[in-house]
Amino acid sequence: MRTAICERLGVEFPLFAFSHCRDVVAAVTNAGGFGVLGAVAYSPDQLDTELTWIDERVGGRPYGVDVLVPGRLDASALDRHAHLMDFIPDRHRDFVTHLLSKYGVTAPAQPLTAVADEFGRRVTAAGASGLIEVALKHPIGLIASALGPPPPEMVAAARQAGVPVAALVGTVEHARRQVAAGADLIVAQGTEAGGHTGDISTMVLVPQVVDAIAPVPVLAAGGIASGRQMAAAMALGAEGVWCGSVWLTTEEAETSPAVKRKLLAASSLDTVRSRSRTGKPARQLKSAWTEEWDSAQESPGPLGMPLQLLVAEGAMARIGIAAEKGEPGALELVNYYVGQVVGQLDQVKPAREVVYEMISEFASAVDRLNTLSAG
Amino acid sequence: MRTAICERLGVEFPLFAFSHCRDVVAAVTNAGGFGVLGAVAYSPDQLDTELTWIDERVGGRPYGVDVLVPGRLDASALDRHAHLMDFIPDRHRDFVTHLLSKYGVTAPAQPLTAVADEFGRRVTAAGASGLIEVALKHPIGLIASALGPPPPEMVAAARQAGVPVAALVGTVEHARRQVAAGADLIVAQGTEAGGHTGDISTMVLVPQVVDAIAPVPVLAAGGIASGRQMAAAMALGAEGVWCGSVWLTTEEAETSPAVKRKLLAASSLDTVRSRSRTGKPARQLKSAWTEEWDSAQESPGPLGMPLQLLVAEGAMARIGIAAEKGEPGALELVNYYVGQVVGQLDQVKPAREVVYEMISEFASAVDRLNTLSAG
Repeated sequence: MRTAICERLGVEFPLFAFSHCRDVVAAVTNAGGFGVLGAVAYSPDQLDTELTWIDERVGGRPYGVDVLVPGRLDASALDRHAHLMDFIPDRHRDFVTHLLSKYGVTAPAQPLTAVADEFGRRVTAAGASGLIEVALKHPIGLIASALGPPPPEMVAAARQAGVPVAALVGTVEHARRQVAAGADLIVAQGTEAGGHTGDISTMVLVPQVVDAIAPVPVLAAGGIASGRQMAAAMALGAEGVWCGSVWLTTEEAETSPAVKRKLLAASSLDTVRSRSRTGKPARQLKSAWTEEWDSAQESPGPLGMPLQLLVAEGAMARIGIAAEKGEPGALELVNYYVGQVVGQLDQVKPAREVVYEMISEFASAVDRLNTLSAG
Repeated sequence: MRTAICERLGVEFPLFAFSHCRDVVAAVTNAGGFGVLGAVAYSPDQLDTELTWIDERVGGRPYGVDVLVPGRLDASALDRHAHLMDFIPDRHRDFVTHLLSKYGVTAPAQPLTAVADEFGRRVTAAGASGLIEVALKHPIGLIASALGPPPPEMVAAARQAGVPVAALVGTVEHARRQVAAGADLIVAQGTEAGGHTGDISTMVLVPQVVDAIAPVPVLAAGGIASGRQMAAAMALGAEGVWCGSVWLTTEEAETSPAVKRKLLAASSLDTVRSRSRTGKPARQLKSAWTEEWDSAQESPGPLGMPLQLLVAEGAMARIGIAAEKGEPGALELVNYYVGQVVGQLDQVKPAREVVYEMISEFASAVDRLNTLSAG
């Protein structure tokens, strides 16, 4: 295709695949799309290993890396001498204990303090910088900031390495701010997307962002898991699309079997925007976890980011283990970040096949539009 | 254009304009679109007058009528010997009195009991039947049911009159149910729409509904106020689009000047889905009214439909009068049903111009898609 993005990034088909799984990233890039590895789950050393693995498989085809750099931070996370876990109030620890007991989760607690510290700090600006440094040593074609404006050091380092910077936004105002901060490419993400989202739908958001920051190119995200939806996004003025949810049910995805089954069974009514996993509103599968945090009388309410992330990830690690053993209570609690397109996902497919199907359906959707408007 | 809908309904351009204002309906129909008059605000006699007015102006071009037939009713509304206002609890009356006083609304109370009864009953199945009967005496091209499946009597009467029945839905399940109940045409309405909406976005909902009920034709609603958005909706598989919000800021619209100014100034972040006006979740401008009902400590919470509608409309009539006088408290409270596209509306235009701009931008969007995919 002939969008400015295709030319600038050397990609055949402007389909960007956000995934935490290197296999998905490599498969999409090799199929003519653009894989983007979500780096938040990795330490800098681990990220280096993952990117080397990808480099060895994509033969120079373009891929990117996504880091989570939140704009506002819980100040407690900035004290590097403290254990982040120490900032979690007793009420919140007790509520997690209560939930695990109420739902009969038997998996043992993990020794979390050190891991949690490492993980929690990685979503701070300081923590992200280690990942950015590693990423820019690899031949990546894009670096993306998933939350908040890209910090000046990230923009400077990327510029020096000749790597374009992308930023995800949910409002026109944020898009303007991100462009001012140096973003070369904006991902306008509607409320129907999985993970951290705003209130405005893709249909409404994309044209407004396109008009507000022209000629800066815009990718559309949220509600896109088919060629028809991709064609719709491009009709709105996007230069390409950024998809996350659709890869979760691919063969390559790291998604655990219990979660994959829940995703395949879910309808588009089965997601909710909840603060219960990260402290910021993030769309995910409705489950007993989101219901209890968001609605139970005894819920203390979620903490901010990154503290709620620590509370949730510690418990979710245990819940995940128990769910894989088939424990019914854990299966009620377990969930994952996913967009409303989850209702379309009912079959496990290779990532490559998803790309090819989207390309083919995109062409059919454009043909149909031509036929309709020829009358 | 050559969609099945265009052929069946004899319309040039499958742009459906929902409006409570006969001037908008006639202007859109005369410009090549399809005007649909929202009948809920009228008594059967008034509706007859409005439709006669339209008939005299559209020269046989197609237009339709929309009635509100809720699926589930507050049982109290079914007792025709009682005054509906008698069912409104003191707490709710007191809260309205408190709000009007807190915001210094000085407009006098209207004698509401009889009007409210009439109005409240019109949104019952029995009340709607009077409107349907009147509508079918006019040469309408479509009758739509805005809430819940069209009742069997409505379908039977429409069939006998040779008028297709449309129904608005927010989920795939409702679409199936509406088709089973006899709907000839489904309007799949995303969460971003104004008025009564569900949770699922247009981008996600439309393709699922199209696939679930094929070959029954689908119009897309929610998030559509421009030619790019119309092209996007058609790329998703819709046969046309159903727009409401975009007409509210046209020259012809009945919208009061104070509300029109608020609409023109609003961004896409300024709407909320709230039960505070009708008892069911309806997207509208955020205002002190929605904030107080939805969040104030002393709020008794909204009643069901139609009782909340009575509570709200009585107060809103006074608030509207005070807002037109420029009373600051009333200007904080006043609002109206509108979708997230309100952020795009920043200029008053004739309805005809809106239609022509959408036609022209639609063509450009299709051209752009062709150019992009030619590469």
